[in-house]
Amino acid sequence: MRPDDICPGDFRPYDIIVKKRNGSGHTPEEIQYLIHHYTKGDIPDYQISAWLMALFLNGLNEDETFYLTKAMLESGKIIDLSSIDKPKVDKHSTGGVGDKISLMLAPAVAACGVVVPMTSGRGLGFTGGTLDKLESIPGYNVNLTEEEFISILQKVGFAMTGQTESIAPADKKLYALRDVTGTIENISLITSSILSKKLAEGADSIIMDIKFGSGAFMKTKEKALQLAHTLSAITKKMGKKAVCVLTSMDEPLGRAVGNSLEVIESIECMRGSEYKDLIAVTSILGGYMLLTGGIVSTIQEGGIKIREKLKNGEAFDRFIESIKAQGGDDELIMDTNKFESARYSIEILSQKSGFVNIMNTEYIGTAAVYLGAGRFSKEDSIDYSAGIIIHKKIEDFVKTKEKLVTLYYNNAKYLNQAIDLVEKAYTIEDDNNSQFQLIHEVIQ
Amino acid sequence: MRPDDICPGDFRPYDIIVKKRNGSGHTPEEIQYLIHHYTKGDIPDYQISAWLMALFLNGLNEDETFYLTKAMLESGKIIDLSSIDKPKVDKHSTGGVGDKISLMLAPAVAACGVVVPMTSGRGLGFTGGTLDKLESIPGYNVNLTEEEFISILQKVGFAMTGQTESIAPADKKLYALRDVTGTIENISLITSSILSKKLAEGADSIIMDIKFGSGAFMKTKEKALQLAHTLSAITKKMGKKAVCVLTSMDEPLGRAVGNSLEVIESIECMRGSEYKDLIAVTSILGGYMLLTGGIVSTIQEGGIKIREKLKNGEAFDRFIESIKAQGGDDELIMDTNKFESARYSIEILSQKSGFVNIMNTEYIGTAAVYLGAGRFSKEDSIDYSAGIIIHKKIEDFVKTKEKLVTLYYNNAKYLNQAIDLVEKAYTIEDDNNSQFQLIHEVIQ
Repeated sequence: MRPDDICPGDFRPYDIIVKKRNGSGHTPEEIQYLIHHYTKGDIPDYQISAWLMALFLNGLNEDETFYLTKAMLESGKIIDLSSIDKPKVDKHSTGGVGDKISLMLAPAVAACGVVVPMTSGRGLGFTGGTLDKLESIPGYNVNLTEEEFISILQKVGFAMTGQTESIAPADKKLYALRDVTGTIENISLITSSILSKKLAEGADSIIMDIKFGSGAFMKTKEKALQLAHTLSAITKKMGKKAVCVLTSMDEPLGRAVGNSLEVIESIECMRGSEYKDLIAVTSILGGYMLLTGGIVSTIQEGGIKIREKLKNGEAFDRFIESIKAQGGDDELIMDTNKFESARYSIEILSQKSGFVNIMNTEYIGTAAVYLGAGRFSKEDSIDYSAGIIIHKKIEDFVKTKEKLVTLYYNNAKYLNQAIDLVEKAYTIEDDNNSQFQLIHEVIQ
Repeated sequence: MRPDDICPGDFRPYDIIVKKRNGSGHTPEEIQYLIHHYTKGDIPDYQISAWLMALFLNGLNEDETFYLTKAMLESGKIIDLSSIDKPKVDKHSTGGVGDKISLMLAPAVAACGVVVPMTSGRGLGFTGGTLDKLESIPGYNVNLTEEEFISILQKVGFAMTGQTESIAPADKKLYALRDVTGTIENISLITSSILSKKLAEGADSIIMDIKFGSGAFMKTKEKALQLAHTLSAITKKMGKKAVCVLTSMDEPLGRAVGNSLEVIESIECMRGSEYKDLIAVTSILGGYMLLTGGIVSTIQEGGIKIREKLKNGEAFDRFIESIKAQGGDDELIMDTNKFESARYSIEILSQKSGFVNIMNTEYIGTAAVYLGAGRFSKEDSIDYSAGIIIHKKIEDFVKTKEKLVTLYYNNAKYLNQAIDLVEKAYTIEDDNNSQFQLIHEVIQ
């Protein structure tokens, strides 16, 4: 490099890559430079993917993770919610199977007076996505403009939308690159991806559901704890409140897996049905949303309030309001029999009697994808009525030939694969020796 | 991925990247798949650069390095020299400053009856390249067709040409990518790059000059030894003979650095001038070329034969023949005063008296690049007459105001930088305490 090619404050991407390759730390300016120029299109994918792999293997410390998150956040628009004069708290889940919590949580929390500005995602791999679930309601619009988003927040108290082009464009580009270069599963990269989007929404606090187990991306509690600590630390460094709740994904949440099936289950839950695990997770996450929002003074009080709103129909009323506000057909919500149902169903029976000790939840999520409830590649469309209803969960006793699950589908192309996975998912033994625990730890 | 998307024997680049990222070994088929499809253009740069970084940080074992080299070699044409009924031995140098050994070595070895099919490279960074040096001879053609190459080998006994498009195209693509993603300096990648080209030339044996020290890419003897062992092992696994000689690059070879300056020095050496270090390196490398070629039975005998050919003018006669055969102007070779010389020169004088204990040889090489003898970027052209003549080398005593070097240039744009580097390169002290040793070790 010629001496006059180097301007003050200017970097060569090559030198930044080599620095991380050699295990050194980055300055805030180096990170800012890479993210800014990559987003602008000045730096090619092949340099960034080499840097991402160096970073994956040599790590980023907390400061570097903070500056990466900040640079990614500042690559796009940050929504200004200061016109809304109420506490604003969002929730994020790292993703699981049957995880429809947002559908009940947002209306319940909004009914307590905390505004929930929620941007959600699509299904990813074997996990479902809130946007896909909402789109199983005909007419529902997940592509709100910023003005619509703020207006619905003011009117209904919560709104659910997809990530717009203007939010964290750096994350969009980086995520697409990570997805094809084997650089997804890194705590710092996951943290910066989650928070650059979540912090752009303008919430004061973020409550995070960190899932681990066979149906989560983090398979071990240890990894989940690491992620929770990093997410919590970086959120606070950004000047926002954070609470992370570690919950198990060693069985699906609730009994429904699949888009309209999960919406229907959520409606039932908001109409008073006793889905113990759904209510437990909703009330702890909601409790912390109320606590950080300053509406209650203890988590116990918060949890009780959330349960009340689910029980007394106030959450459901908010849900209906929101469906209407976002263009969805509320007749289906009032009468879930009006949801289009799958043409075919098949029951999977147990081959033996005993206790369900293990459910490989990734297998169940993948089976649902095979039935059409998810995507193999980004271009695939979703079959909203396809999915699985689970009859036996962990600790349940099952008799030979008793139903384990029912599979719903319109296209049998991969039915055999789905059946095979569901059968392999269950471990049924003579003794009830599962150690299942739903809620594990809270990191504040 | 759908089950029917996976064909037997087929791979996803993603899975291969993740495997190396996780520290696992590759099968021959995985390596072959990546190299074949990358060369064809089926796999994008950004996946290969992530893989290269994973490989850089997690390493390749000897088997993986062998299969990588093999796949890269087989990505292109392998020259068939079986029509030449003589031993065929090539030499490779890992590159240094003032390294003009090939210019004397190839004619001396050819004069002994061993055919030298040599493909050479361009200058890289602070090091010079044989092709650039040869092109300082007007008319000299370094782009021989395969037919011309073989015909000159038969007639003259040696030929020097650039790498054609058809030789190891995988290396061309990979090297260009490594160059901008910080993945050059890895023993396995260096080995596969060198050998995929060298093995394509059809030689039976390869003698390698592995340089280390301040003017080499390998700064330490330890790294050079590692590279030598890997190069030697992989060459043998490929069914060829290999000898690696470790030599020091802690001072430039000879006294000339720069293209026509080095050609002139080589001619002087082949006409009987006593350049001790040039003759020492030429005779050990040439000795091993004769030994592996079966012309002599000991390295001592080989070394003596090479010295003879340099002394008695036979090497020089071969050199003239080769220049004519490759289209160069032999009048300049007969009378080196006819080489175009630089318009300007400046002498750098010592600021103190004492012994030269250290010469930072990278600084000297970089100074020559600043004067115009090398390229800052691939698009730059070379100023053939620019360069440096060194008056004082390690262990020399120098008086205050005595000449250290003379700089030759046509363009003074970066003259200050060159002067600065040359002055910084010399460490002159009261006592002679250098530990300089030119030839260190032989790995067979």
